[in-house]
Amino acid sequence: MTIILDAMGGDNAPRSVVAGAVSAVRELPDVDVVLVGRESDIAACLTDCGAENEPRIRIRHAPDVITMEDDPATACRVKKDASMTVALTMLKNGEGDAVVSAGSTGALLTGATLIVKRIRGIRRAAMGPVLPNGGKGVLLMDSGANVECTPEYLLQFAFMGSFYAEHMLGIERPRVALLNVGAEDTKGGELQKAAFALLREASDAGRICFIGNAEGSDLFTGKMDVLVADGFAGNVMLKTVEGAAKFMFSLLKGVFYASTKNKLAALVIKNDLAGMKAMLDPSEIGGTPMLGITKPVVKAHGSSDDRAIYGAIRQAVACVHADVAGAIERNIEYMKLNGKGE
Amino acid sequence: MTIILDAMGGDNAPRSVVAGAVSAVRELPDVDVVLVGRESDIAACLTDCGAENEPRIRIRHAPDVITMEDDPATACRVKKDASMTVALTMLKNGEGDAVVSAGSTGALLTGATLIVKRIRGIRRAAMGPVLPNGGKGVLLMDSGANVECTPEYLLQFAFMGSFYAEHMLGIERPRVALLNVGAEDTKGGELQKAAFALLREASDAGRICFIGNAEGSDLFTGKMDVLVADGFAGNVMLKTVEGAAKFMFSLLKGVFYASTKNKLAALVIKNDLAGMKAMLDPSEIGGTPMLGITKPVVKAHGSSDDRAIYGAIRQAVACVHADVAGAIERNIEYMKLNGKGE
Repeated sequence: MTIILDAMGGDNAPRSVVAGAVSAVRELPDVDVVLVGRESDIAACLTDCGAENEPRIRIRHAPDVITMEDDPATACRVKKDASMTVALTMLKNGEGDAVVSAGSTGALLTGATLIVKRIRGIRRAAMGPVLPNGGKGVLLMDSGANVECTPEYLLQFAFMGSFYAEHMLGIERPRVALLNVGAEDTKGGELQKAAFALLREASDAGRICFIGNAEGSDLFTGKMDVLVADGFAGNVMLKTVEGAAKFMFSLLKGVFYASTKNKLAALVIKNDLAGMKAMLDPSEIGGTPMLGITKPVVKAHGSSDDRAIYGAIRQAVACVHADVAGAIERNIEYMKLNGKGE
Repeated sequence: MTIILDAMGGDNAPRSVVAGAVSAVRELPDVDVVLVGRESDIAACLTDCGAENEPRIRIRHAPDVITMEDDPATACRVKKDASMTVALTMLKNGEGDAVVSAGSTGALLTGATLIVKRIRGIRRAAMGPVLPNGGKGVLLMDSGANVECTPEYLLQFAFMGSFYAEHMLGIERPRVALLNVGAEDTKGGELQKAAFALLREASDAGRICFIGNAEGSDLFTGKMDVLVADGFAGNVMLKTVEGAAKFMFSLLKGVFYASTKNKLAALVIKNDLAGMKAMLDPSEIGGTPMLGITKPVVKAHGSSDDRAIYGAIRQAVACVHADVAGAIERNIEYMKLNGKGE
């Protein structure tokens, strides 16, 4: 299997991307990597990692870079020689099995849609990160790809999320909930009310397992496997979780440094605490899959270090093995409700 | 000063409401309390607290109760003898200075609008809880009162939030941000783009201090004092913070109970940790003010215990002293932008 890496994407590129790639070929059997980007920069990073002769890593030169300043809607169209554009084009052409990028989310989404294409019948691709809940996690669909949604998009997110949870997280009959401002069936705005009706109908037909509305606080309770949301609310939720985790660890650090006796106590629980932090750490959880695209495209966090890139590569490998895109493609007819949700 | 309490609202009513009222009159000078609800139930709770002869607590009998099953839109209209309806009517009639209720949020909002009335010129009342950020906190406007908003509502939320932050949190020129999916000026859907333009205009005119878009993760960074959001996204953020805090403390508990040595270490930092928990605890922070109503109405959390009720009473007292409603009322003309935002 070959994973194509956008070597120039992310705050710490190309260094962290190259280091993550080196970890991947060393730790994962049968995984080759192509690093796409400025050849000389990548080669220098490979040398730094002592991996200049690693046979399972190749470089594909791409002189240009898509930055956060580029317009996401047109970046891949305008910058044909950018690492991201070249990586996605290689995926389209079958020169690899999945793409991982820590570059601009918007550009990657537009590029994936434009170059690799959406699965026929899918209205919008969505970003589905897995959020920690103490168990197998909750897939949040969508988390920011689609700021404005229709009820039909949300129904498709529920289906795609269910396939992902089944094939990637190993959950039989994943429980789907709709993000809302209250648990009662009648809550929310027009979007939520209409989406609720579609989800209920799909559930009554036995096609998904819809458990009703969920509030922000329900995310961590283990009551659902897939949480369906418009990309605006989903993004607010995702980033609030990230910010809250960071904030609470900073408060905890304050407690640990408050006195000498606290410092000693902190030393005792240090390892167990690191395990807790890892559980909440996006870099351990991996990247975010773009569901609805014909082939696996995984977005790594912009601030990814080498472990985070490695996590995203591991996730891309799992996506290829599980053939999530194929599962969605084969089930397009199954996802239709009497002409609705098409 | 007299605070009117809906004694029957909340999961632990009337016990926790009565106990909170007893704390209030014992700890706060010059505060009288009227407990509104079933006289015999309230009297029994007062006896349990050893406060049956407390001269600064009165009971106003109201035989009916608004429950979570009642339609929030009509509850106060239909149940004229419910504790919440009677409490709001007393406030309107000048038989007290503020109302505190832990009952149905929707019913309280509709009731306050219907009975106590919105300030003339205010389009929608909003719920503005103060979220912890390690400093003076962030006022989140709106957090669920208005699921669907117009850009003009959001501009008014910014003004009302600024007045609250100034008068209640003691912040001069409060920094206002707009909740969005990215920091760039062009982010978001139609609502955010239009609201951004109005907020920018008000800021350029020197009337508020708008610092631009903020993401979910920015909540805890201390960069803003007021965060403006539609009630749907705001509610998702608020409840996600609540859920995340609860989840992380449960993980932490797991770490502390993992071994005997951890348990001993936990004992050492116990007190400092309690301080951290209190900082994140909604009951310590107080209730949520409903801004835009002619007189102070404070919503306490449904699960409030006596300390949380006491916190909400303290906040209501501060609202009366600071005359936030008056500040909004006096500034209605100031909030208008050439006929926009009216």
